[in-house]
Amino acid sequence: MNVLIVYAHPEPRSFNRALLDTSLRVLKEEGHTVEVSDLYAMGFNPVATAGDFTERRFPHALQYDREQKQASQRQGFTDDIQAEIDKLLRCELLILQFPLWWFSVPAIMKGWIDRVFANGTVYGAGGKRFDQGGLKGRKAMLSFTTGCFPEMMESDGLLGQRDVILWHLHHGTFGYSGLQVLQPFVGWSIQYSDEAQRHAHLEAYAARLRGIGHEEVMATHPLADFGPDWRLKPGIEPRTVGHRRPEGQDAAR
Amino acid sequence: MNVLIVYAHPEPRSFNRALLDTSLRVLKEEGHTVEVSDLYAMGFNPVATAGDFTERRFPHALQYDREQKQASQRQGFTDDIQAEIDKLLRCELLILQFPLWWFSVPAIMKGWIDRVFANGTVYGAGGKRFDQGGLKGRKAMLSFTTGCFPEMMESDGLLGQRDVILWHLHHGTFGYSGLQVLQPFVGWSIQYSDEAQRHAHLEAYAARLRGIGHEEVMATHPLADFGPDWRLKPGIEPRTVGHRRPEGQDAAR
Repeated sequence: MNVLIVYAHPEPRSFNRALLDTSLRVLKEEGHTVEVSDLYAMGFNPVATAGDFTERRFPHALQYDREQKQASQRQGFTDDIQAEIDKLLRCELLILQFPLWWFSVPAIMKGWIDRVFANGTVYGAGGKRFDQGGLKGRKAMLSFTTGCFPEMMESDGLLGQRDVILWHLHHGTFGYSGLQVLQPFVGWSIQYSDEAQRHAHLEAYAARLRGIGHEEVMATHPLADFGPDWRLKPGIEPRTVGHRRPEGQDAAR
Repeated sequence: MNVLIVYAHPEPRSFNRALLDTSLRVLKEEGHTVEVSDLYAMGFNPVATAGDFTERRFPHALQYDREQKQASQRQGFTDDIQAEIDKLLRCELLILQFPLWWFSVPAIMKGWIDRVFANGTVYGAGGKRFDQGGLKGRKAMLSFTTGCFPEMMESDGLLGQRDVILWHLHHGTFGYSGLQVLQPFVGWSIQYSDEAQRHAHLEAYAARLRGIGHEEVMATHPLADFGPDWRLKPGIEPRTVGHRRPEGQDAAR
């Protein structure tokens, strides 16, 4: 597989960096091709502005997604964005490697998503999203570290259910773009771990990556499960953490 | 009330800007004091780095949250961060005004959270989080625009349940810091709205803000609902979208 790892951590001695290095080593040993976008090292600009386009379709007022659509058609992105789009379209597996900050990705990585996951390329008009998204046929995985303990992200845990926490990334970003989602790899409570535990985390990640091509993807709903009212059709059982039947409505509606 | 509005949109003619202007006008009419952080206009830097601290406790390797803790104790933040922390601590109501990008805030606003919601100030050692968080006694609200229609964010809608989408912000950011959360204000499907519909959105927002001091906050769990295993104690009924009893376990465990 061609693998793209997008990595966001400000410190080269971090455990995130060790996870990145582990993934690079193992994926290459397994015969995969790997590209890396090291966002901090690149000085990646995360702020979406009018300056992201070499020409404007609507110069009087910026509608960012509409300019993205035109730029997708006319190769009208600035070079830093186009280079990332090219990497994204070359990959068969996307891995985001980051520390979980405020239940999400660091701002520099959110900006990579805002600017690179462009309208007209990864989603857009004509029903281009979810299983019809621009990145369909590819897979994606979150690999992140936490300050918290795993029991805090159980369904009855302090922080709430892990897949609810990650819904905006798994469903709202990966799924929306057509990516099939693999279970995340989580390096739990890193600052409370000793050397042996960190080594065990790295070994677990290495073992996971050796079998990465054969993993099952997370359950989702294809577009065809939804009616013209954008709601699950009668008879379709909700099968994700973000979908459920409204209160008082039985499965058959 | 003292209100802080943090605003992120790159276009001064945007509908988000109209919502901001509406809130400024109405809140002042109602006798509130309002401060605004217009992140794009300020050129706010969203990227957390070692440069955010005027001195370092652990100079050999950056552990961002540990440096935040020391900076909170010793006023060791750079001026741009300290100015925002000061505004945050002055406010009784925080409003985030933004376009929903990838089920979340734009990167420039995520970076405002990453850098300003500092360890030692808004959360930290000694159980300083949720109802014991550093911002307790204050309220917060998301006010955002969407490209999608409201039915897409119903519990059986294409994008998933609205409060699952927003969990990382409502619970993971506001709640974690001690802020009590008001229902969001949503300007639905703005690019498909005509002038009359946009006017109606603005009127609805104005009406909402006139009564903002008397609204009920969203349901949450205090820290005391969780046991030493970080899980909901026996007998506590889950009452948020992110908490539920594990499969096969009855409410009493």
